[in-house]
Amino acid sequence: MSILVVGSLALDSIETPFGSVENALGGSATYISIAASYFASPIRLVGVVGGDFPKDAVRFLESRGVDMEGLETVKDGKTFRWGGKYHYDLNTRDSLYTHLNCFEHFDPKIPEKYKHSKSVCLGNIDPVLQLKVLEQIEQPRLVVCDTMNYWIEGKNAELRKTLKRIDILIVNDSEARLLSQEPNLMKAGRAIRAMGPKIVIVKKGEHGALLLTDEIVFSAPAYPMESIFDPTGAGDAFAGGLVGWLERTGDLSEANLKRAVIYGSTLASFCVEKFSVEGLADLTYLQIQDRFREFRELSHFDED
Amino acid sequence: MSILVVGSLALDSIETPFGSVENALGGSATYISIAASYFASPIRLVGVVGGDFPKDAVRFLESRGVDMEGLETVKDGKTFRWGGKYHYDLNTRDSLYTHLNCFEHFDPKIPEKYKHSKSVCLGNIDPVLQLKVLEQIEQPRLVVCDTMNYWIEGKNAELRKTLKRIDILIVNDSEARLLSQEPNLMKAGRAIRAMGPKIVIVKKGEHGALLLTDEIVFSAPAYPMESIFDPTGAGDAFAGGLVGWLERTGDLSEANLKRAVIYGSTLASFCVEKFSVEGLADLTYLQIQDRFREFRELSHFDED
Repeated sequence: MSILVVGSLALDSIETPFGSVENALGGSATYISIAASYFASPIRLVGVVGGDFPKDAVRFLESRGVDMEGLETVKDGKTFRWGGKYHYDLNTRDSLYTHLNCFEHFDPKIPEKYKHSKSVCLGNIDPVLQLKVLEQIEQPRLVVCDTMNYWIEGKNAELRKTLKRIDILIVNDSEARLLSQEPNLMKAGRAIRAMGPKIVIVKKGEHGALLLTDEIVFSAPAYPMESIFDPTGAGDAFAGGLVGWLERTGDLSEANLKRAVIYGSTLASFCVEKFSVEGLADLTYLQIQDRFREFRELSHFDED
Repeated sequence: MSILVVGSLALDSIETPFGSVENALGGSATYISIAASYFASPIRLVGVVGGDFPKDAVRFLESRGVDMEGLETVKDGKTFRWGGKYHYDLNTRDSLYTHLNCFEHFDPKIPEKYKHSKSVCLGNIDPVLQLKVLEQIEQPRLVVCDTMNYWIEGKNAELRKTLKRIDILIVNDSEARLLSQEPNLMKAGRAIRAMGPKIVIVKKGEHGALLLTDEIVFSAPAYPMESIFDPTGAGDAFAGGLVGWLERTGDLSEANLKRAVIYGSTLASFCVEKFSVEGLADLTYLQIQDRFREFRELSHFDED
């Protein structure tokens, strides 16, 4: 079992109605890796940070079974920093600042021993870089990819090339509509599958997620949160939980894809309960199983 | 088994991206009654129409087992007419006109033989009238009620009085938030339950529905529609399917409430497939069962 994770590592400053944190560990590769680490090992991270990246953060990731050999440190550079403020309903946020710093020139180099990773999870980065990563990997069993409006609009042709190499694309509903130019999500899913990914997962925030394949539509509920503390990283935790479960089981059957979506949702629900990566920091497998079962309670009904 | 349905009967003129209809049968009582008629009999309708209300419409409702004794006809009056236009994504609509006509002075009179109805379903009308209906009924087993922003804002105190007599309130998500002054739907549900209804059902359109009781949260998926033909009446068809199933089974257990939400969703999904009430006009019980099972496929997953 091995999962290659490529994406950002960041220091986030976040304000929510519940409080604020400064320079807290963040970034897509971080959240994906931690979430996936509950299911599979090793997690092999590729990313870049500056000399200011805290040693504690590296040690924490290592303690979660994340292989940090692929972390490039630009000694005299600064780590990617993002500041954001969430509003009352937590569905909208303002970016207060985005300092790409050394992430601006990120050029993912895959260490030799990472090149046979079974699964690859590409965080939301430039699709040109995503493709460059895939070109360095030898026949991965599964490639999971995230993207966003910024790339769909700004690097559409490049993204289309990357999509041909993707097995599972994870997007939110507005991204699915933008990418497919189709307001109906069923049709959007079909249009995106025609671009390459055999499987499309549409995240709908407080409304759960849809799994769309050639054969099935699966509607996963959202966990009923009474107080979302910090939504940052939820989508990446989802991707990490999903790819982690699929790598753990090595099973891409429909029944298991459904479970993977629920495990993704489970990790995302833990993620938003605390600031930064705290909600994912020290879960037990039992806690994860219990929440998985809560998702079952939430959505199951009997015929008679 | 008997269900009293009180609400509007209307002649709707509807434009959607798929076509248009003129003076088609509509109104909350109409949709609720037809949907409920697949599960229980008799359905007892109370409403008002003008002399222009088509005889065919009355005969159609009667053919569905709807008792029309409670239909008041104002011979020299006109039936409530509504004109609406749905936009491309079908989630937004413009009301082109609303002619209340004889519905403006609707004063529901409950025929003697209706007064022992087991279940009552109150369509979206003035909460003062909803309460007036309930005061004429002798100990119904179940009272289901719909309302809307217009009454929440304009007759809040009156609505609060009505809510004390309601068992199940059906609202959409924005109405739930408005009524409770609470953006989080879990908290909104609790706040609304404190106003009277033991059970709150939150309709979320293309995102399904939530069933909220003291004990459980149940998340029902939306049926994956590729082409919604005409969304008019979907919420009323949901209410009708729900109350019909609950009256048919006489079972308010949690397991059966979940089923009722799915039967409501099932009838709503048929409703939007055609214009006006056509989608509900001649279903078979087998079709309904098949779609119920499709909802099961859509949302179920196994642990291993």
